[in-house]
Amino acid sequence: MRAVIFANGAVHWTTKPQPLPGPGEVSIQVRMAGICNTDLELLKGYMDFAGIPGHEFVGRVVAAPDHPELLGKRVTAEINLGCGRCRTCLTSGPRHCPHRTTLGIAGKDGAFAEYVTVPASAVHMVPDGVSDREAVFIEPLAAALEPGQQLHLTADTSVLVLGDGKLGILAACSLRLQVPDIVLAGRHPRKLAIAAAQGVATRHGDIAGLREAFGRFDVVVEATGRPDGLACALDLVRPEGTVVLKTTTFAPTPVDMARVVVDEISLVGSRCGNFRLATSVLGHRLVDVAPLIEAVHPFDAFPEALAAAARPGAMKVLVEF
Amino acid sequence: MRAVIFANGAVHWTTKPQPLPGPGEVSIQVRMAGICNTDLELLKGYMDFAGIPGHEFVGRVVAAPDHPELLGKRVTAEINLGCGRCRTCLTSGPRHCPHRTTLGIAGKDGAFAEYVTVPASAVHMVPDGVSDREAVFIEPLAAALEPGQQLHLTADTSVLVLGDGKLGILAACSLRLQVPDIVLAGRHPRKLAIAAAQGVATRHGDIAGLREAFGRFDVVVEATGRPDGLACALDLVRPEGTVVLKTTTFAPTPVDMARVVVDEISLVGSRCGNFRLATSVLGHRLVDVAPLIEAVHPFDAFPEALAAAARPGAMKVLVEF
Ligand SMILES: [Zn+2]
Ligand SMILES: [Zn+2]
Ligand SMILES: [Zn+2]
Ligand SMILES: [Zn+2]
Repeated sequence: MRAVIFANGAVHWTTKPQPLPGPGEVSIQVRMAGICNTDLELLKGYMDFAGIPGHEFVGRVVAAPDHPELLGKRVTAEINLGCGRCRTCLTSGPRHCPHRTTLGIAGKDGAFAEYVTVPASAVHMVPDGVSDREAVFIEPLAAALEPGQQLHLTADTSVLVLGDGKLGILAACSLRLQVPDIVLAGRHPRKLAIAAAQGVATRHGDIAGLREAFGRFDVVVEATGRPDGLACALDLVRPEGTVVLKTTTFAPTPVDMARVVVDEISLVGSRCGNFRLATSVLGHRLVDVAPLIEAVHPFDAFPEALAAAARPGAMKVLVEF
Repeated sequence: MRAVIFANGAVHWTTKPQPLPGPGEVSIQVRMAGICNTDLELLKGYMDFAGIPGHEFVGRVVAAPDHPELLGKRVTAEINLGCGRCRTCLTSGPRHCPHRTTLGIAGKDGAFAEYVTVPASAVHMVPDGVSDREAVFIEPLAAALEPGQQLHLTADTSVLVLGDGKLGILAACSLRLQVPDIVLAGRHPRKLAIAAAQGVATRHGDIAGLREAFGRFDVVVEATGRPDGLACALDLVRPEGTVVLKTTTFAPTPVDMARVVVDEISLVGSRCGNFRLATSVLGHRLVDVAPLIEAVHPFDAFPEALAAAARPGAMKVLVEF
């Protein structure tokens, strides 16, 4: 099969034997995959990953020796693959298993290939009403929904999402299901408009203007992807409030922890999310992800797709097989 | 009256008229006051405070024009004095009022003086069974109890208190009421012994040894007072766990926020606490604070008391009037 690998900061094609499902695994023929900022980081050397990248995808099960009921189904898969035996796996699931592999990110070949294998336990069926293009968003949508799983948000909680990238838009559109008056702040009118079309109040993201218009928020979801994102969030959260941290590419940055202590602020790290919830949200058409699609390229044009995804301000670029 | 002020890094005596209670205030004759690390920071210039320091105290109400029922009572007082009118005061109390003064720390003369005035609403009566020496601990004990108010701790939560200073010992002895198997880690056998005598499991605080003995903890209370305290805490908390931050003297330090996000850790700032709870805990003799007392000096010897409190590793130094 044809597959993509990253090496020395560049994309390379490779040809590999079609992977056979291991015990408990299924083999999936990939139909559509999404390029994510994490992929761009991997290309730069993040995680020292040497395999096939790609962790947002949808495909059809073509081999499932131990799970014949999955054969022929259209599915996506969780990306954190636990050992299934350690205390973490048995008590809180595979997401933080110390022995885990992460599909297309660490220790497990991903979906920028014609076929990918995953444990059957990681598979989620895609509802019929959800298109392939939309199904690729199940992973990022799960991550965007996660602050609402971590915190007890109510209709009266004042919530600001900071950053109008893909994750910020998805977070604002997701959390508006719990918080009617959610606000998204960013710097790109074209991107803010995507969330505004789904009923999110949007604002240009200057701190002084936000403070004047809204005061300080109970909860700020930091999704800027910028090194100063946390400092901005701290300027916009109220004492005893919560900042949810979504930016994974933070370099170790000086943080005013004295302020966090004096104002008794909580900082909550938030990475992945619940696939079952995201699948349900898409299936019920509660969030419209289609406007986030920037382009769909054929798999043969993967290098062009990657270049499109790397352009500053790019929205989601998909690859069709 | 005689009072202490800090200026240019040194203690000075001053003589002032006895303060008269303002509207709604009471005047208290100070009987005993405690010297806290915050006082030592004030001496170095923290908060640019120019008034009379002192925020841990007990005394007797000698004037209470608007609250005659308090006259003659033995009391202590909250240290965060809100405006009583703003949205913060009306919804979540005075602790984070943006217009607040803080007794002996910011904008309000404190208790290193023969008399101090405070709003009657800030006053807490000291139960008869609690001695003056113990009553001085109501403020720090409230702060030590606070993680148990901020988090839902159960008997099965694994909790580590990091740092065997006064706050760490008080936190471990306080939280053991909720968490029977709480562990206190520090570097001073004499200090660890104070907590061990109250049934706390204690350990020398090297990270590798702690990891080997206990694995990672659900909750780490960071009370080291050291700049590297947060990094140590992150090495000892499990994924999806919580670090409670008690060190207020953090300089802006580089923090590995990517790790916080990837491991979905929560950092919870924790400063003050609930005086009613601390008064009750002392009144029921649930925590023994007496072993934390290093020395009691007469008020006339305040400079000597301050020097004793500033010695590395000093426990609580009290001043008697
Ligand atoms: Zn991703
Ligand atoms: Zn595991
Ligand atoms: Zn203090
Ligand atoms: Zn107020």
